[in-house]
Amino acid sequence: MKIFGIDPGSERTGYGCIDTDGSRHRLVACGALKAPAHTSFSDRLLVIHAGLSSLLAQHRPDCVAIENVFHARNVRSALKLGHARGVALLAASQAGVAVVEYAPAEIKRAVVGFGRAEKQQIGQMVKLLLGLEAVPSPHDAADALAVAVCHVHSSFGAVADAVHQTRAPSRLTSWRHYRP
Amino acid sequence: MKIFGIDPGSERTGYGCIDTDGSRHRLVACGALKAPAHTSFSDRLLVIHAGLSSLLAQHRPDCVAIENVFHARNVRSALKLGHARGVALLAASQAGVAVVEYAPAEIKRAVVGFGRAEKQQIGQMVKLLLGLEAVPSPHDAADALAVAVCHVHSSFGAVADAVHQTRAPSRLTSWRHYRP
Repeated sequence: MKIFGIDPGSERTGYGCIDTDGSRHRLVACGALKAPAHTSFSDRLLVIHAGLSSLLAQHRPDCVAIENVFHARNVRSALKLGHARGVALLAASQAGVAVVEYAPAEIKRAVVGFGRAEKQQIGQMVKLLLGLEAVPSPHDAADALAVAVCHVHSSFGAVADAVHQTRAPSRLTSWRHYRP
Repeated sequence: MKIFGIDPGSERTGYGCIDTDGSRHRLVACGALKAPAHTSFSDRLLVIHAGLSSLLAQHRPDCVAIENVFHARNVRSALKLGHARGVALLAASQAGVAVVEYAPAEIKRAVVGFGRAEKQQIGQMVKLLLGLEAVPSPHDAADALAVAVCHVHSSFGAVADAVHQTRAPSRLTSWRHYRP
């Protein structure tokens, strides 16, 4: 089963794709999408959308895992993050891939073991779990891989069923609805 | 000159297209995009994006005018609005149409005459300015038309030049950058 994690951001959007049988995971690809400096905000959204659409077409994952956001530093950063996350969800829906969402604490708990883990610990665990030689860089890529790993660790069996069920219609919809 | 106003929202996205010579405006089309009840959040984004993309292809406006948002009731509603606004900006960028953004108070000032006008007053002025028989409904459509009218009223001359200049490259970029 191939899982594609996304860590959306208007400055940089991380992605990480893993192949897994439920217990052993293999890194397929990871990285971050970043628009050149001085790119307008609309064009940053274009870069995120086009980049993710092309990666989803290339890797054809069974499922997209993305962090669910409930909090932000302030309204402005929530708005910016919302824009980036909106085009990321759109790219997944257009590609017909099921979308699963996890709260930040769920991801940390599933990957590191406790919900208040720090960025560095997440990177180290991602490195260990995927048998990598170094922590994936930039940290957005490691965070995206963490969401993908979280999806396997927390609900592999249940999710595999859910994805199988939602795959019945020609285009998949999100089976865990966005609930901000 | 054809101007396409957008009033984005995750529940309902209003749009309004007008044709203008700078002083006289004519309604081309207006309405609101709304996904059926119980549609998942990702699919709502699909409806907004597909609807706007098709309308922009149909009407081929010279410019898209959209409200710039700096405030929201809370972080959650900012996140939701951000998602909808993100896919709206993406549709405009993908269509190669210049995007102009106005603060809510600018729109009210340009349409009604003062920055604290109420929804009803905006609807009435839109009806008057476009010579309509009734206030456009739903109010999201009237709000979208107000942004379009604001663009004409506040900077028709300057904008006509700017759009002309930015039309030189094959694909237009936003000349008034998003600044949340």
